[in-house]
Amino acid sequence: MLDVSNFKVAEGVDLDLSTHDPNSKLGFDGNKKAGQAALPAYRKRLAELQTKLWAKKKQSLLVVIQAIDTGGKDGTIRHVFTGVNPQGVRVSGFGRPSEEELSHDYLWRIHQETPADGYIKIFNRSHYEDVLVVRVQGLAPESVWSRRYRHIREFERMLTDEGTTVVKLFLNISKDEQRDRLQARLDEPNKNWKFNSGDLKDRALWDDYQEAFRVALQETSTDYAPWYVVPANRKWYRNLVVSNILIQTLERMDPQFPAPEEGLEDIVIE
Amino acid sequence: MLDVSNFKVAEGVDLDLSTHDPNSKLGFDGNKKAGQAALPAYRKRLAELQTKLWAKKKQSLLVVIQAIDTGGKDGTIRHVFTGVNPQGVRVSGFGRPSEEELSHDYLWRIHQETPADGYIKIFNRSHYEDVLVVRVQGLAPESVWSRRYRHIREFERMLTDEGTTVVKLFLNISKDEQRDRLQARLDEPNKNWKFNSGDLKDRALWDDYQEAFRVALQETSTDYAPWYVVPANRKWYRNLVVSNILIQTLERMDPQFPAPEEGLEDIVIE
Repeated sequence: MLDVSNFKVAEGVDLDLSTHDPNSKLGFDGNKKAGQAALPAYRKRLAELQTKLWAKKKQSLLVVIQAIDTGGKDGTIRHVFTGVNPQGVRVSGFGRPSEEELSHDYLWRIHQETPADGYIKIFNRSHYEDVLVVRVQGLAPESVWSRRYRHIREFERMLTDEGTTVVKLFLNISKDEQRDRLQARLDEPNKNWKFNSGDLKDRALWDDYQEAFRVALQETSTDYAPWYVVPANRKWYRNLVVSNILIQTLERMDPQFPAPEEGLEDIVIE
Repeated sequence: MLDVSNFKVAEGVDLDLSTHDPNSKLGFDGNKKAGQAALPAYRKRLAELQTKLWAKKKQSLLVVIQAIDTGGKDGTIRHVFTGVNPQGVRVSGFGRPSEEELSHDYLWRIHQETPADGYIKIFNRSHYEDVLVVRVQGLAPESVWSRRYRHIREFERMLTDEGTTVVKLFLNISKDEQRDRLQARLDEPNKNWKFNSGDLKDRALWDDYQEAFRVALQETSTDYAPWYVVPANRKWYRNLVVSNILIQTLERMDPQFPAPEEGLEDIVIE
């Protein structure tokens, strides 16, 4: 197992994202091929833990994934979870809010999607957009978004107290890596569909987004719902790190198969 | 207008319910007949304010109503709101949670029902049941329900910050009054349908419920989402107090009709 504690954002400490190398492959000695070869064993372990969580139906896991454009949210979900029984795994994506959603508080649509007992829920984007894009693009004044860090901390505290473990992943790529990935979307015909000219506007705001991420992670990483800064330039290493974080989180939750009915040993099937 | 500040539970102060007289008709000089005659004018004012709230669609009001059995929740809603345009007023009742609801945190079903901009939402029972009946009947251990006061304070803070004004009403009847009301349900054929033998079990736990209410009100009455202890033995006075609380709350919200489109004065309808 990888030591993922290196990537965890400590509660109540100033965060300096420049100390987090997006190119890191800390703790893994092999090359890309070896890294890719290591993934299936982790996926198997993840599937075992998820089966117990599902059978017992007493706890749930919420995995929040955030990243800058091209950061690899979709790819992470595909690689880490493909092969895990989909019955107990669900993904919720949060795009631009609808008019109905905007007529409620920003956590209203989020809360509806939190996992029921037994489930792993993956948030592809989340309530963090309300302190990221909303902040950077000035969609709400500072007086509004600055209060949300507390709301979010307390919302996640309540979820945790009531049986949902929350873990949050920031897929950390470098500005150069983003350029290469955007260029690939222009150059490779089967990636063209992913290209959105709006991404270039957001790229021009790179520094603002980095600062918004830094503050969001610093203000909302707690012992009960920690953020991890996942080195994400190398996709194969990112997948290993994410798998390890989820496995170690689930192992701490320690789901157990429910006790069998009593008297099973006396039953004879005729 | 009545001075309803007498009934407000101050934030952070020990609450002594014995100082709140369920028989009170403080600030109203007349008798029952005069009290009933005063209600329509308040209802009219409530309707005016609600029309502005609805037209502007920038804020919302959440009215939480809690009481012991026979406390008058349904009657209060009927008397205070009948005659107010139902387009912008909605009632949500919360009974025993379903299996799906129980598989989520206790605020999950509540949050879905919070009002959209422009609406007055009345909660007939609410998330407070999760620190009332749940506490008294031991449906969850103290380690679980004792954390909920904070969750609720912070949940209501978030709602308030995001545009929903929250006001909470405890309809306060005496133990003798409850006896009379239960007896009437047995004696009067057209009230028989309201009688539920489970109410007698809850009546036997009167003191436990009073203490659970006392702590809930004390722990969750805040400047931004206050509790009011409404004297509720006299139904006509209860209705006046509730009307006054809602009117004064809406007046502080100060909803305004939206500005008309520019240039209306130049339009000629031919």
